Amino acid sequence: MMPINNFNKTKIKIYSTNKGIKVVDSPIKIQILNILEGQVSEADIVKHVGKSKSTISVHLKNLIEEGIISFKSHPLDRRSKLFYIVAEYIGEIYPNQIIYQMPEINSPLSDKEKLFTEVFRQYKSILLMHGLQLEPLEVKAGVKIGKSLYSTLSFQNFDELIKAIVDKFEQLGMGHIKVSSDNPLILKNKSCCECEDMQYNLPICNITKGILKAIFEEYYEMEVSIEEVECISKYDDCCSYLIETKANNS
Amino acid sequence: MMPINNFNKTKIKIYSTNKGIKVVDSPIKIQILNILEGQVSEADIVKHVGKSKSTISVHLKNLIEEGIISFKSHPLDRRSKLFYIVAEYIGEIYPNQIIYQMPEINSPLSDKEKLFTEVFRQYKSILLMHGLQLEPLEVKAGVKIGKSLYSTLSFQNFDELIKAIVDKFEQLGMGHIKVSSDNPLILKNKSCCECEDMQYNLPICNITKGILKAIFEEYYEMEVSIEEVECISKYDDCCSYLIETKANNS
Repeated sequence: MMPINNFNKTKIKIYSTNKGIKVVDSPIKIQILNILEGQVSEADIVKHVGKSKSTISVHLKNLIEEGIISFKSHPLDRRSKLFYIVAEYIGEIYPNQIIYQMPEINSPLSDKEKLFTEVFRQYKSILLMHGLQLEPLEVKAGVKIGKSLYSTLSFQNFDELIKAIVDKFEQLGMGHIKVSSDNPLILKNKSCCECEDMQYNLPICNITKGILKAIFEEYYEMEVSIEEVECISKYDDCCSYLIETKANNS
Repeated sequence: MMPINNFNKTKIKIYSTNKGIKVVDSPIKIQILNILEGQVSEADIVKHVGKSKSTISVHLKNLIEEGIISFKSHPLDRRSKLFYIVAEYIGEIYPNQIIYQMPEINSPLSDKEKLFTEVFRQYKSILLMHGLQLEPLEVKAGVKIGKSLYSTLSFQNFDELIKAIVDKFEQLGMGHIKVSSDNPLILKNKSCCECEDMQYNLPICNITKGILKAIFEEYYEMEVSIEEVECISKYDDCCSYLIETKANNS
């Protein structure tokens, strides 16, 4: 399978707003959205994007009308506004066609397990092949699954939680989990079933990511960020996940 | 679960072109694309869309530049052009937000089969919930699966093929297939696993559709159209599929 090598040229972002799905393909708007982590003043946006104040104003007004961003007064200077994203980011469209082959089906689909493992694998590949990278939605599906799994884990302390996760991954055929670092917490999966036989040059184990996110969020009772820092799909030895509570993070 | 009731207000279509993914949200362009089945002259497009020739010309020019349509000379009148779609249609975005709840996970995810059945179900629901209806891509994944399944079926004649399909669906836990009509061929599935516990007011068993499409295309050695005329997801008693060879059709 040919690797995908133009994934850095993202030009289109998809947001879900309370006015419906919005597709943003303006490079300036995407630059603005990229710097809108938390609340940012118009002056800072102008500085970072490097366009005139009037240009930025027009784009900010559009983004507000589309329901993607909103604003409020600066607490220290009421004449100044702080802008922030209100829409849910659901994915990207890669504007350049990605050419690679669909993954082969190597073993007979002899039962429902093999069927649905393959259905998900093929569907995910077809989306990527057509330039649709919907990582946030895959993570969301994983979170839903992870919450359900968490309720079946039994443990008394953190070490037992990790043991319960390892056992659950074995039971579900999702791979062999090992702790590779305690602080920060990094889990490695040597035989990840989510990206098996897929080579896309990008981390793609988003269901696993969502599952781990949900489990640790339930455990810590706070938001947890998960990054897939290595992925077999991008020629790493294993898939590994860096897990940080937002409290640690900020 | 609240039904989705605004699925007729489609305003955005997604195409995959050799210049990448293109999102079409202009109502006039969508009207043009809707009537471009086969090759259509500009005069016919103008007549059907009900806009001026100059307006239509601009939109046709844009669609050509985007790689969505192309044209050739009319065989009987070289001054006249025939327009046709060259891009692959991959789905729709519903611009109005769809409000309903995610499907519940009712039984423990105790093995890989239950896990992946649920992964696909949740992921598909999340896409729909965010307004992404990617029916053509789901069908494509189904076709890939169906081709693999076809190679495992053994039969000598059409009746045995149907029997083999029934058995395969049982074996894979996909439901109980019955022939409800021979001509045209209609298959019914009384216990479809693809839309179990999902109520979306639209036919959603697109993997099954793709699987059946591939099986009958391999058998007939020609293109087959499959329509899901009933679906449990839209409150019908069963999912049923109308299967027609393109030769029958035209």
